[in-house]
Amino acid sequence: MNSFHRIFLLTFFTCCPGLPAQDAAIRLMPVPAQMAFSGQGFRLDESFTLKVSGVGADRLYSYATRVLRRLSGRTGLFFSQDFIRKSDSAGSASLMIKSKKEGQVLLGEDESYTLVVSDSVVILDAATDLGALRGLETLLQLLSVDGNGYFFPGVRIVDTPRFPWRGLLIDACRHFMPVEVVKRNLDAMAAVKLNVLHWHLSEDQGFRVESKVYPKLHELGSDGFYYAQAQIKDVVDYAEQRGIRVVPEFDVPGHATSWLVAYPELASAPGPYMVERKWGIFYPVLNPATEFTYTFLSRFFGEMAQLFPDPYFHIGGDEIEHEGGHEAKHWNENADIQAFMQKNGIADNAGLQAYFNRRVLEILTGFDKIMVGWDEILHEDIPRNIVIQSWRGRDSMTRAAQMGYRSLLSNGYYIDHISPTDFHYLNDPLPADLPLSEQERKNILGGEATMWAEFVSPETIDSRIWPRTAAIAERLWSPRSVTDVDDMYRRLEIISLQLEEHGLTHEKNYDMLLRRLAGGGDIAPLKTLVDVLEPVKVYTRGRQKAYTSHSPLTRVVDAARPDAKVARRFRKAVDRFLTSTASGDEAERRIVEYLSRWRDNHLRLQELIAVSPILAEIGSLSEDLSKISHLGLEAVSSISQQKKRPDSWVKQSLASVKQASKPRGQAELMVVAAMEKLIISAGSMQLQR
Amino acid sequence: MNSFHRIFLLTFFTCCPGLPAQDAAIRLMPVPAQMAFSGQGFRLDESFTLKVSGVGADRLYSYATRVLRRLSGRTGLFFSQDFIRKSDSAGSASLMIKSKKEGQVLLGEDESYTLVVSDSVVILDAATDLGALRGLETLLQLLSVDGNGYFFPGVRIVDTPRFPWRGLLIDACRHFMPVEVVKRNLDAMAAVKLNVLHWHLSEDQGFRVESKVYPKLHELGSDGFYYAQAQIKDVVDYAEQRGIRVVPEFDVPGHATSWLVAYPELASAPGPYMVERKWGIFYPVLNPATEFTYTFLSRFFGEMAQLFPDPYFHIGGDEIEHEGGHEAKHWNENADIQAFMQKNGIADNAGLQAYFNRRVLEILTGFDKIMVGWDEILHEDIPRNIVIQSWRGRDSMTRAAQMGYRSLLSNGYYIDHISPTDFHYLNDPLPADLPLSEQERKNILGGEATMWAEFVSPETIDSRIWPRTAAIAERLWSPRSVTDVDDMYRRLEIISLQLEEHGLTHEKNYDMLLRRLAGGGDIAPLKTLVDVLEPVKVYTRGRQKAYTSHSPLTRVVDAARPDAKVARRFRKAVDRFLTSTASGDEAERRIVEYLSRWRDNHLRLQELIAVSPILAEIGSLSEDLSKISHLGLEAVSSISQQKKRPDSWVKQSLASVKQASKPRGQAELMVVAAMEKLIISAGSMQLQR
Repeated sequence: MNSFHRIFLLTFFTCCPGLPAQDAAIRLMPVPAQMAFSGQGFRLDESFTLKVSGVGADRLYSYATRVLRRLSGRTGLFFSQDFIRKSDSAGSASLMIKSKKEGQVLLGEDESYTLVVSDSVVILDAATDLGALRGLETLLQLLSVDGNGYFFPGVRIVDTPRFPWRGLLIDACRHFMPVEVVKRNLDAMAAVKLNVLHWHLSEDQGFRVESKVYPKLHELGSDGFYYAQAQIKDVVDYAEQRGIRVVPEFDVPGHATSWLVAYPELASAPGPYMVERKWGIFYPVLNPATEFTYTFLSRFFGEMAQLFPDPYFHIGGDEIEHEGGHEAKHWNENADIQAFMQKNGIADNAGLQAYFNRRVLEILTGFDKIMVGWDEILHEDIPRNIVIQSWRGRDSMTRAAQMGYRSLLSNGYYIDHISPTDFHYLNDPLPADLPLSEQERKNILGGEATMWAEFVSPETIDSRIWPRTAAIAERLWSPRSVTDVDDMYRRLEIISLQLEEHGLTHEKNYDMLLRRLAGGGDIAPLKTLVDVLEPVKVYTRGRQKAYTSHSPLTRVVDAARPDAKVARRFRKAVDRFLTSTASGDEAERRIVEYLSRWRDNHLRLQELIAVSPILAEIGSLSEDLSKISHLGLEAVSSISQQKKRPDSWVKQSLASVKQASKPRGQAELMVVAAMEKLIISAGSMQLQR
Repeated sequence: MNSFHRIFLLTFFTCCPGLPAQDAAIRLMPVPAQMAFSGQGFRLDESFTLKVSGVGADRLYSYATRVLRRLSGRTGLFFSQDFIRKSDSAGSASLMIKSKKEGQVLLGEDESYTLVVSDSVVILDAATDLGALRGLETLLQLLSVDGNGYFFPGVRIVDTPRFPWRGLLIDACRHFMPVEVVKRNLDAMAAVKLNVLHWHLSEDQGFRVESKVYPKLHELGSDGFYYAQAQIKDVVDYAEQRGIRVVPEFDVPGHATSWLVAYPELASAPGPYMVERKWGIFYPVLNPATEFTYTFLSRFFGEMAQLFPDPYFHIGGDEIEHEGGHEAKHWNENADIQAFMQKNGIADNAGLQAYFNRRVLEILTGFDKIMVGWDEILHEDIPRNIVIQSWRGRDSMTRAAQMGYRSLLSNGYYIDHISPTDFHYLNDPLPADLPLSEQERKNILGGEATMWAEFVSPETIDSRIWPRTAAIAERLWSPRSVTDVDDMYRRLEIISLQLEEHGLTHEKNYDMLLRRLAGGGDIAPLKTLVDVLEPVKVYTRGRQKAYTSHSPLTRVVDAARPDAKVARRFRKAVDRFLTSTASGDEAERRIVEYLSRWRDNHLRLQELIAVSPILAEIGSLSEDLSKISHLGLEAVSSISQQKKRPDSWVKQSLASVKQASKPRGQAELMVVAAMEKLIISAGSMQLQR
């Protein structure tokens, strides 16, 4: 049995008042604010029933019905209830859900709940039906098993989120994401208690919303890939049913090529414009010096303000003048704009953007919207009633909070960078030592994971979002003290499989992509390699090869997943081995098993590569893994036998490791650093063991 | 290397004029009407381009664009073209597509095409753009590989379908199927050249279409699970883009409980009615004796006639008086109806239904629709301009054709019965010896696979439809002479993996469901068992356990797939072994490998079952497999050594096999009959080898 089973068999819990919550949390993500185990818990059988009482929105009934179906799906139990109805609220049931009032799907709404599992009944109490939805997800995560069947452990949970704004940004522009992709991700968000979908809807590469006021926007700016207004309403409703706000982003004045394809008269430089196919930062930008722009934005934002009911409205505002040296060329070269600046005493482009933003703010305020934008919209001339989303860093967020702006952290949550989960997990938006007053601290609303879509398709996006975003969700919900990385990884694996319930493809498309790559052959040797590969990090991928929006996203690098689990396990085992004093221990056994498999894998994989040209680009990576695994085995053997390897061997081996560390096909081996450690250790035996 | 690789390495083909098409077809499904290989074929690299010329619908451009993306996805090649545009039709390209006229997505439209691959260019010529779509799918299937990369083999294909009506019925009533389920299946249908989606939209268990004329139909009859009219339009358009007709079915006068929930005044017995939760045939039925019914149907069908542009309109009409003894109780017990029959000289319920159908036919004819219905609507009083869909059998279809009705075969294509693929494959709608005149033969329009949805959810439906339906598609498209079952199975495996390109889950949800069943444990031992399990056949499942529309469809029986591949391979190996004369041959080696694995599997699976109560129901099945595999090994050893087993052993062993043949959890072992053969052979050595 593997470690999962052992977790499952932990049947009886005891109350641990002295321990921080996460030690007892067992299977929950996010970990609740307060939690105490007691008693034997509630046994689940076919007589299980569920009732909703009190005051709440209708969504609680449909949500509860879905929870019943999910419980049935996991346990195979044939429950008798079909739908949970308002009219059935009288009487008793196994699970009693009470909501005191109808929740508003708005920033700051009460999402707290109390969940008590005893051996006779499960009681979920919440101030609003939104709190009840959160509690139901906790209950589903509690489902446990022992030799006698399924049960909810005896527990008392009092839970409330640490931050009110816990978001996921989905970029539907760089690659269009059909409605079902968004919906299944909304389900997953609800499962880990995220409550904001930040929907990035316009970009240089595409304008993704139907506009009835300016139809050329979607007709000419989308290549036919856009959301009809009925679909937007459907998604907004779907989100609201799950207690999730939808904040749309229409990025202005930059990142706006697709607008200009349709309406070149908005531009700062003469057209014509074409929908951008490449990735990067581009010059096209709205003209802030003409009233036409504001008339246009007023009518268009007015239409969108209706379509998206949430009071917050994101205007992007990023990357007009980029730190990397990008200049607002089209502003600088437009004589009218320069004249306008002079006439209005605007000193620089930052000032010009601030002018633009003030005008946009006026427009949005007229529609009762609160403006949100990226770091760049922060300017001393802008009123304090906007929200700053920080991509540049915590300093920028902190400064905004000090200036009196409310702000959100996204820096450190860029999941498209392919960073390991623990990097995001330990990125606290509001560490204890942040130099902010009590009042300023309240300005930090929370944070958002950002799924930018240069390198994801509907087939791969889930694997970039999940399961890592569940750890970010925990960071934004759970107490600051919940920081045990090993425990996070343990729970993450459990949650990751549960998320498949919502149709997410982060697990199942891995084998599917490998099958396609193998062209019908046995995928085992390919999987052995890709299990220890990851895509290259941050924006290296686009620098190593010229991608466009039509490049295939079906190669090895796309099948490879962030934070490769097998590689992580190997690195952990190596660390354990190198710090252990016993020889022939379990860590050594595991390392040798891994290394032997990798050493022998290339021979098998070669046969597959010979009949799958799409794999040719990782042939030498496979060969390198085989080579360094051989060296790793030699190192382990030396270390184990306390026989120091000669310096020449170390030098040569490190050269091989260096060669192996080079990315191929924009993918890289994630076991190289651990291999280096083994080799160095084998050459300097006095340093360890 | 497994057999797949050997297929892929068949690089050079030669023209085989003397052979039937299927022998040379290699990777195509359906096999084309005419096909000859010659030359080396066309090599694919990043310079590949594609042009469309001639006259065709816009859909050809978007389809061609998607084909380019699919080619890019399979090969990893970065092609330069983004979208195929009308304006780019001049000049040359690697793939030249010509369409002579715009195809109409209507019954009988020309779908023929000619595809010629030479070493310098690929030319696809079609009378209509619909033929070009079919040819593009053929081209994608031709994609081959050798040591030098990807290529299309040199070939000349002249292709046209055998039958004009090649359909798949999707029942979206018994379990609702969201739009994305329908869309991905439409993509798969196009990939195997099916051209009719028969969409079953009303049933006792649910009314699935928004009606603006009678909104209570979807409001009260659907539990909230229905298609908005915008979604219907979206699906119809999606289908038309793929050259697929959409024929809606609104089942009347029976199977109509959900209508009566909303409008009990339509019923033949007093209400109130509730949406049916059980499976079966039920009494509720429309009242054919009141004008209200016809006024209602006239307005409702008028609305639907607009929504569904296809001229064919399916009214169901089945199972009012069921052969199994079901009677039209509500008609028999309604005094008004009895009086009406007497007054109008209607002798029996069949006559009453014929009266109803004539009235409905009048209504539909008024909307320029051609009525389609199941066998039961056939009655000598009904005009000949309707289409009969035969579920009862070929005889019924033949009789209809003889009476002058056009007809469709569905009997033998009931994929919900969980029959093996070859059963459906060999079910020819129009065998050479069918007693029909040349004229009557033309009345046979084709056939439809029927995906009835009692026991499928959005998670499992694809695995019931695919890949088996690809073989039915071949039956309906390819020449009658294409009947090689082994070759069909070989190609089916190739096509099955290609279908994953469209997001189908028939392959990938297998492991996903097993992961859920295993609760996070290692799925390998579970897979070993489920690989040789199938759900029980025809309608046994509902008789073995009381299911409702809310029963979980996540148990082992749901993970198990029709026509279990591993079991089939074992049966084939046993047959080869028992007819072979050599000992120690490859078949024996494979059998021993299988049997040893199965014998040892129960010990491992037991551990998993202990922590996954949902698996308890198949514990004894696993144990039985282990037992009979042990017996199978003894048998093989005896046969191999030509040592006859004693009769007592045979008797006892057959008793064990009989025990093992009993379904558990509505699933059954598909290796039992082969095991029986081995045991009998071991006891009667003179009979074989």
